[in-house]
Amino acid sequence: MSVQRPQHAALTQFEVRADSLHIGGIPLARLAQRVGQTPFYVYERKAMTERVALLRRHLPPDVHLHYAMKANPMPAVVQHMAGLVDGIDVASGGELRVALDTTMDPSRISFAGPGKSDAELSCAIAAGIVLNLESEGEMERAAVIGQRLGIQPRVAVRVNPDFELKSSGMKMGGGPKQFGVDAERVPDMLRRIGELELDFEGFHIFSGSQNLKAAAIQEAHEKTFALALRLAEAAPRAPRLLNIGGGFGVPYFPGEERLDLEAVGANLARLLDELRPRLQGAQVVIELGRYLVGEAGAYVCRVVDRKLSRGQVFLVTDGGLHHHLSASGNFGQVIRKNYPVVVGTKVAQGPREQASVVGPLCTPLDLLADQMELGQADVGDLVVVLQSGAYGVTASPAAFLSHPAAVEVLV
Amino acid sequence: MSVQRPQHAALTQFEVRADSLHIGGIPLARLAQRVGQTPFYVYERKAMTERVALLRRHLPPDVHLHYAMKANPMPAVVQHMAGLVDGIDVASGGELRVALDTTMDPSRISFAGPGKSDAELSCAIAAGIVLNLESEGEMERAAVIGQRLGIQPRVAVRVNPDFELKSSGMKMGGGPKQFGVDAERVPDMLRRIGELELDFEGFHIFSGSQNLKAAAIQEAHEKTFALALRLAEAAPRAPRLLNIGGGFGVPYFPGEERLDLEAVGANLARLLDELRPRLQGAQVVIELGRYLVGEAGAYVCRVVDRKLSRGQVFLVTDGGLHHHLSASGNFGQVIRKNYPVVVGTKVAQGPREQASVVGPLCTPLDLLADQMELGQADVGDLVVVLQSGAYGVTASPAAFLSHPAAVEVLV
Repeated sequence: MSVQRPQHAALTQFEVRADSLHIGGIPLARLAQRVGQTPFYVYERKAMTERVALLRRHLPPDVHLHYAMKANPMPAVVQHMAGLVDGIDVASGGELRVALDTTMDPSRISFAGPGKSDAELSCAIAAGIVLNLESEGEMERAAVIGQRLGIQPRVAVRVNPDFELKSSGMKMGGGPKQFGVDAERVPDMLRRIGELELDFEGFHIFSGSQNLKAAAIQEAHEKTFALALRLAEAAPRAPRLLNIGGGFGVPYFPGEERLDLEAVGANLARLLDELRPRLQGAQVVIELGRYLVGEAGAYVCRVVDRKLSRGQVFLVTDGGLHHHLSASGNFGQVIRKNYPVVVGTKVAQGPREQASVVGPLCTPLDLLADQMELGQADVGDLVVVLQSGAYGVTASPAAFLSHPAAVEVLV
Repeated sequence: MSVQRPQHAALTQFEVRADSLHIGGIPLARLAQRVGQTPFYVYERKAMTERVALLRRHLPPDVHLHYAMKANPMPAVVQHMAGLVDGIDVASGGELRVALDTTMDPSRISFAGPGKSDAELSCAIAAGIVLNLESEGEMERAAVIGQRLGIQPRVAVRVNPDFELKSSGMKMGGGPKQFGVDAERVPDMLRRIGELELDFEGFHIFSGSQNLKAAAIQEAHEKTFALALRLAEAAPRAPRLLNIGGGFGVPYFPGEERLDLEAVGANLARLLDELRPRLQGAQVVIELGRYLVGEAGAYVCRVVDRKLSRGQVFLVTDGGLHHHLSASGNFGQVIRKNYPVVVGTKVAQGPREQASVVGPLCTPLDLLADQMELGQADVGDLVVVLQSGAYGVTASPAAFLSHPAAVEVLV
């Protein structure tokens, strides 16, 4: 009996022709010439457009889809997404500026994040976007700033739920948290929102991210609606907005399977059919970042040196953890696992070997692939890290060891 | 019997007066006014100068001290260090430019790092610095570039030793590695260096970093000298240079104790007394980064919100993992531990409480202190992460969520 090692989920978002990856319809080697340097990140419009279409097919038609741009804030990507989705969620004043440069109606932009500065609150209120309030203190500051500006702030309450999203990559609700206001304190806060005459929009209830288990997301949706309906009773008026978060994951590591979107959508449809009368017309919003762009991007670097050390092959590339910290395993992972990595012009057909892909940094942390089976690569070949459209370049220490920055392109 | 939890090592590099931290002789609140924004990193000249003096006292007088500027490449810091140490080690073309802007003689600058590009090799050869060759392929490329430039490249061989530095934070030698050339292949490489008429400087043997155990460093020194003497037999001429690496650690986490520098120095003196006749005048170099600057720096951020969530206090600051990834625990650590953190103007005397310090990012990873005992802080107070002079701002994902960058100052 042979033991089968866990495999990466099948990835079909990019075409492979003549054993070369094509992204945006362009053969990889030519794309690298067009970009003019390695390393680079490439994001594909078509993959994002198809991903949004997939969601539209499976989610109830009256659910709005927001793009959480923290996953990929490249301005060209945000512009593209703005034409596909119903709203944008921002996490900082910097992101807000990029979102406001799109054609998205400001009333469909929301801003979540603990520790918003007065300057950020002021910009957000002046822009007329929805502030997801993270604390009572932030609420009071927003009211003061609104008065000073002569503009009624539009606010939603970000709730720290009294449950957790199970099997989640990152738990963002349940127990003591820095995010949102504990569910049990929300009724008092809602009364105060009325007193302060803030423009109450609704709730933002977000319990976790990077979840691949449909059952866990379904359970979170049920609990989220129940909590929202309970909290709505104390609201100064019926909520216009109910942001139930996102948390849909994408497969990164061997053994991970795709989220069953059909099951999540069907459950949501059932829940909404049941609850619509009680929601009094509140717009339900799902907010997704990684799920919209994560699979639409790749990181491309070039082999600079091929080394044999004590029986192991090392492909030393011009790319590394300074551009792609997550692929190195040094961003929140407890156990390092390999991202899906391929040699971009030797995907599957030629001779294969076991090799490690490392970067140019003087640290053993700088590892993009640890003893993976890859097409046999030489100096000059392009190595591609797939599933790299989200939390790539911006989540990496670009200045580490003062190497050149990665370029980003959208094709 | 009460159980004593592990404590942080006593930190005395910065003065505390009237319960306020003073850095560079400046009270912290005034320093923050002078900088004009939070968050910022502050590095102290005096602490670096004293650290170099401490090393000079304990190390044999004929050992050279190099600064590995990857630990902190801020140009003002590198300028300061250039006046204190005997050489600078760079890890990229970008770092090389900064090093060449100091008064350091280029012959005392060395460049290590796998995957050097042809452009980097060309700059380094033209500058007349010492290339630490990481592979046979790099040697051949250097020779070709040297011929093209009409300059004889100065080269040392970086050796992947046949032993490991025990108890090391990062193992960089022993077994299959991307760094250097396997010790057993070095004799062949040395012959080829002779054939290629490269200017042979010597060896760079570096086995690990962030080590707090004197015995482990002593053992590595002994093995390093033995290996160097063995390899020197195959060299085209007697080595002029023997870089034995560094690896001296600083205490970060509760329970860690300072390296016994006296023991390391005494052992090195004994070894050198014994080996000097056989070293034929080779200059012994110790290369340190973190140990020179790590304790001389602090990261300072401001409390924006004070939250209570289900019984726990959260201080939400304007600083976070986007500026200080290591303190968040997300840079190579397997188990998250707290860096030494204090409230900068309420260091020890006032009322205390257990609190967590978090940043403004929408991720639970953004944690600077997890339920630590701190002076009771309010909105506007300054939170200080100590031991932050090395691998701070440059080792952090500055663009993550598009928040403002941290400023760096040297006082």
